[in-house]
Amino acid sequence: MAGMVYLVGAGPGDPELMTLKALKAIEVADVIIYDSLVGAKIVENLSEDVELIACGKRARPNLTQESINELMAKKVREGKTVVRLKGGDPTILGRLGEEMVFLREHGISFEVVPGITSAIAAPVAAGISLTHRGLASSVVFLTGYQASVSSALDWESLVKCNGTLVILMGVTRLEEITLELVRHGMNADMPVAIVEKAMLPDQRVTVGELGTIVEVAKLKGVRPPAVLIVGQVVSLGVRR
Amino acid sequence: MAGMVYLVGAGPGDPELMTLKALKAIEVADVIIYDSLVGAKIVENLSEDVELIACGKRARPNLTQESINELMAKKVREGKTVVRLKGGDPTILGRLGEEMVFLREHGISFEVVPGITSAIAAPVAAGISLTHRGLASSVVFLTGYQASVSSALDWESLVKCNGTLVILMGVTRLEEITLELVRHGMNADMPVAIVEKAMLPDQRVTVGELGTIVEVAKLKGVRPPAVLIVGQVVSLGVRR
Repeated sequence: MAGMVYLVGAGPGDPELMTLKALKAIEVADVIIYDSLVGAKIVENLSEDVELIACGKRARPNLTQESINELMAKKVREGKTVVRLKGGDPTILGRLGEEMVFLREHGISFEVVPGITSAIAAPVAAGISLTHRGLASSVVFLTGYQASVSSALDWESLVKCNGTLVILMGVTRLEEITLELVRHGMNADMPVAIVEKAMLPDQRVTVGELGTIVEVAKLKGVRPPAVLIVGQVVSLGVRR
Repeated sequence: MAGMVYLVGAGPGDPELMTLKALKAIEVADVIIYDSLVGAKIVENLSEDVELIACGKRARPNLTQESINELMAKKVREGKTVVRLKGGDPTILGRLGEEMVFLREHGISFEVVPGITSAIAAPVAAGISLTHRGLASSVVFLTGYQASVSSALDWESLVKCNGTLVILMGVTRLEEITLELVRHGMNADMPVAIVEKAMLPDQRVTVGELGTIVEVAKLKGVRPPAVLIVGQVVSLGVRR
């Protein structure tokens, strides 16, 4: 029988925030290729009968996107069911597009199982609603990496959109991001929250203003991975 | 014992796309107040021992946000555990902010359980990755309602952001939305997809271009609720 690939979102780390569909895909898997952003508890729970391959950047030496693609194809050719397990949701700011294009080009059947993205879990953890009447009517999601490739991003428009900004992996480039936002017209007193380990027992929420959050984050020793939330909605209801 | 409220996202409708945490909250509920956007199968599965209250707009006469708030408070005062069950995710473009503010002001303890938003399930259903290197580095989420309250939204900036646009409940105002986008500089041949009933057995994906999608949608009888996706990423991989 021909193998196939499930591209699965594992959610923000709490095993209870996985979907039934994700758990079912994991149950039928012969091989699980997982990112370093998949929660430690979730990885611990994976069956020992399954071939586990860590491809994440922090835990072990990198597998390039190309090697991950080739690995999936190889295992599928061996008739295996492959789960490509990603932290959060695979469709939002992951490399899902590249993996789907590859799988389609190679005639490999696949199914995508969405997950709870940390872009949504982080505000929940901090008690923040991303939209609120009169404060924000839209939400922009981007990554810190993308934010720092300035040519790809129109900062001025981003600021003028007046929506809440949710920046995944925003801490490493916190200084660049906050400088660009201020330089393009956002007020330095705009409320900002940084959420580390959203919805995990050791989650932490750091609150500040756009102009001073870099210092605050340094003082508190904020570390990646973390989600940066910028917007008036932050002032409405941060907890913890 | 004092009652409490769980604000729970039910996901896009497929019961398997609910999280374990959502299921656990439902299990301990005495009262479930649910929206019309909660999947029919999910509602069918709810226990008969629970007090079920439909507040949704389509199924029954409206409950205003104020009445929903009061209802939650009343039940909690009776010592009951209330689940406020919402379609998709409660934090993204729902009225979560208002409910959280109300509950805090009334000293009612609550927990938010995120769900899979249809803003993410819809592109998955259509085989679309919301971001892709060289095509889109950010994603903007908004609702058709918000899009039509023109004062709240800077269309020009929205277009200039060059990200993928995901518009929930975008079908009722499809004509206004597409006209505004074209008027503010988006190309009329920008690829567009409309996803009805994302990830349910009777899901349907309608594809077209910004300039002609209104006619195509009419011809095909596209009906709300549906998610509108606008951006180059649509051309990369629509299926079904």
